[in-house]
Amino acid sequence: MSVTAARGFTASGVSAGIKDSGAPDLALVVNRGPSYAAAAVFTSNRVQAAPVRWSRRVIGDGALAAVVLNSGGANACTGPAGEDDARAMAERTARALRVEAEQVAVCSTGLIGVPLPMDRVTAGIDAAAAELSEDGGEAAAIAIKTTDSVHKTAVASGSGPDSGPRSGSGPGWTVGGMAKGAGMLAPGLATMLVVLTTDADVSAPTLDSTLRQAVRTTFDRVDSDGCMSTNDTVLLLASGASGVRPDPAEFAEAVHGVCLDLALRLVADAEGASKEIEVRVVGAASEQDAVTVGRSIARNNLLKCALHGEDPNWGRVLSAIGTTSAVFDPDRLDVSINGVQVCRDGAAGEPRDKVDLSGRAVTVTVDLRSGDASATIWTNDLTAAYVRENSAYSS
Amino acid sequence: MSVTAARGFTASGVSAGIKDSGAPDLALVVNRGPSYAAAAVFTSNRVQAAPVRWSRRVIGDGALAAVVLNSGGANACTGPAGEDDARAMAERTARALRVEAEQVAVCSTGLIGVPLPMDRVTAGIDAAAAELSEDGGEAAAIAIKTTDSVHKTAVASGSGPDSGPRSGSGPGWTVGGMAKGAGMLAPGLATMLVVLTTDADVSAPTLDSTLRQAVRTTFDRVDSDGCMSTNDTVLLLASGASGVRPDPAEFAEAVHGVCLDLALRLVADAEGASKEIEVRVVGAASEQDAVTVGRSIARNNLLKCALHGEDPNWGRVLSAIGTTSAVFDPDRLDVSINGVQVCRDGAAGEPRDKVDLSGRAVTVTVDLRSGDASATIWTNDLTAAYVRENSAYSS
Repeated sequence: MSVTAARGFTASGVSAGIKDSGAPDLALVVNRGPSYAAAAVFTSNRVQAAPVRWSRRVIGDGALAAVVLNSGGANACTGPAGEDDARAMAERTARALRVEAEQVAVCSTGLIGVPLPMDRVTAGIDAAAAELSEDGGEAAAIAIKTTDSVHKTAVASGSGPDSGPRSGSGPGWTVGGMAKGAGMLAPGLATMLVVLTTDADVSAPTLDSTLRQAVRTTFDRVDSDGCMSTNDTVLLLASGASGVRPDPAEFAEAVHGVCLDLALRLVADAEGASKEIEVRVVGAASEQDAVTVGRSIARNNLLKCALHGEDPNWGRVLSAIGTTSAVFDPDRLDVSINGVQVCRDGAAGEPRDKVDLSGRAVTVTVDLRSGDASATIWTNDLTAAYVRENSAYSS
Repeated sequence: MSVTAARGFTASGVSAGIKDSGAPDLALVVNRGPSYAAAAVFTSNRVQAAPVRWSRRVIGDGALAAVVLNSGGANACTGPAGEDDARAMAERTARALRVEAEQVAVCSTGLIGVPLPMDRVTAGIDAAAAELSEDGGEAAAIAIKTTDSVHKTAVASGSGPDSGPRSGSGPGWTVGGMAKGAGMLAPGLATMLVVLTTDADVSAPTLDSTLRQAVRTTFDRVDSDGCMSTNDTVLLLASGASGVRPDPAEFAEAVHGVCLDLALRLVADAEGASKEIEVRVVGAASEQDAVTVGRSIARNNLLKCALHGEDPNWGRVLSAIGTTSAVFDPDRLDVSINGVQVCRDGAAGEPRDKVDLSGRAVTVTVDLRSGDASATIWTNDLTAAYVRENSAYSS
């Protein structure tokens, strides 16, 4: 159902010829109103692609009428010409939709440092505008794929403004979304792009705070390989077409749910991965400590190799914890892998051969025994397939 | 010539049976004086192996008579029993050499979380003490290997106290050393261990400052996989047997030279690596900025895969720079790979197909154009062989 699950939105995806393969590579998502409130979160990488710079500028007023997205080229590190190209994409989209360029966000994904074939891009925008429909969400999700093996969508819905139980249908509201990528996994084809839509009637400031809170504990805690893209963008557009002003907590829960669903689909589709690893850190002195420790574990190449080899090597977990400045006592660390407490008080606990790592899902739980805070980071293993896919020549 | 190149030292290496393979696994390095000044640098990992905790304590007085080292087991994360074992190794060595246990440093390397077979270790110490000789440096260097393909030694020499040109022989002094490992590369067999010896007559405080300065720009700038061991130890022992008090600058240069030589041997022997990568960061606002940027590039899995695939993917270099807080303007970054300036002003420069990456040596030079500081980090590529070697089951 993707981005057209919510009322008030049309979308499309076409093959513009940006990709040599001829696969779909250009998508539009259009908000038909009556409201045009929008919010965005962008990569924190200081090297930012031209479309990110453009979108960051136009989201300033909290309103968007459309998003144009392309795969097949990141338009990152392309200099002033790349800036012109991002603006030209917005202008062409605006002309086709009869809106202002400043109401159009731009997202690109693909190889860094290579200019987009703008003749094909602009023709593709015109073609995509002609294809817009209320059923176009799937086509849009497919057109933003790079090396994703599947396209990724999610939907959640909420009830009317009364405080009764959820209706599940009727006059309620919906949040839908699509995503591509998994951090930076592909050969030069960087980037996570996410577009969320809702027909709930929500103001731009509320959208902004809701989106930031949701991203903080979902997309920001997916760490496939520690690499950060120049193009990561998460957009949330609200049409207000349901006429319902949702309960803020319920709306926040729905947005969080869609974000988490999409984030886990990104990890599940991580290139070359054979394990999905959930790193749960509990007993932390602060949530920041928990996140720092979880991320250090999730980025440890040696542990990721060991789990790939189905070796419950808890020593590598402790080594990773030890590189952080979190509050903990090295002699009071506990580590469980898939439910078996292989490390107690910083030393060997249950026999490691009790751990069953034959499945695809792995949970590493660390108790810092220093407080009540916790956090979860999702990652995947490091495999020879990852190396192969990322060492192929980029052109 | 290893640790016995300098006068006043004996060494040995024996097979104690700690390793199942029967390969040499226990080494002694003994300072026969007349001076016993010593200095040490240890891992900054907060999870520290028992031998590191022991050695950190006994180096407090700036004097060591001997070092006992074993491969085949790290004695890390082994709880109070592991602490007892490290102390027992020092005590057994002290008894065999008729010195105090507090004069004996202990170094261990191997799998984390597994107790040492202490009966074999103590018998091995006795056997190693019986084998001590002035020609034992090579045997000691061989006995500390884990998955190292070659043992690693280096030597430098200095002139007498007069300020004339180096004599190269005669009454001068010598710095010798041995090393094992390459960061944390092997399957659970963590750790870089380094023992340096000199017959120069140098006080403990001078040894300490000289060693720290040398380590800071050599071993601390080798980053094979971003993983930090629980056992890393660098020791420098001075016998004073040459009777020469060296010129401090000349001595510092010799110690730095031996450290750099050994550090580059570690990178060259990194498991599974097919490229040795030198990341040079120039034009930085501060040395710290240069180190931070260099390390971020050296730890970028995507770049390390790309260079393995002989792809001069400078976009991944910029992505890595962008994750740091160093001073730079994204639109004024220059990157050269093997001498070809593939990125100028943050965008494409020379054609990437001009870059020849067919050889084993790769140099990535980044100009931040923000100052005069610089630093070099040495790393290697990420290969399927690395994944294979580090995903093999540890037991």
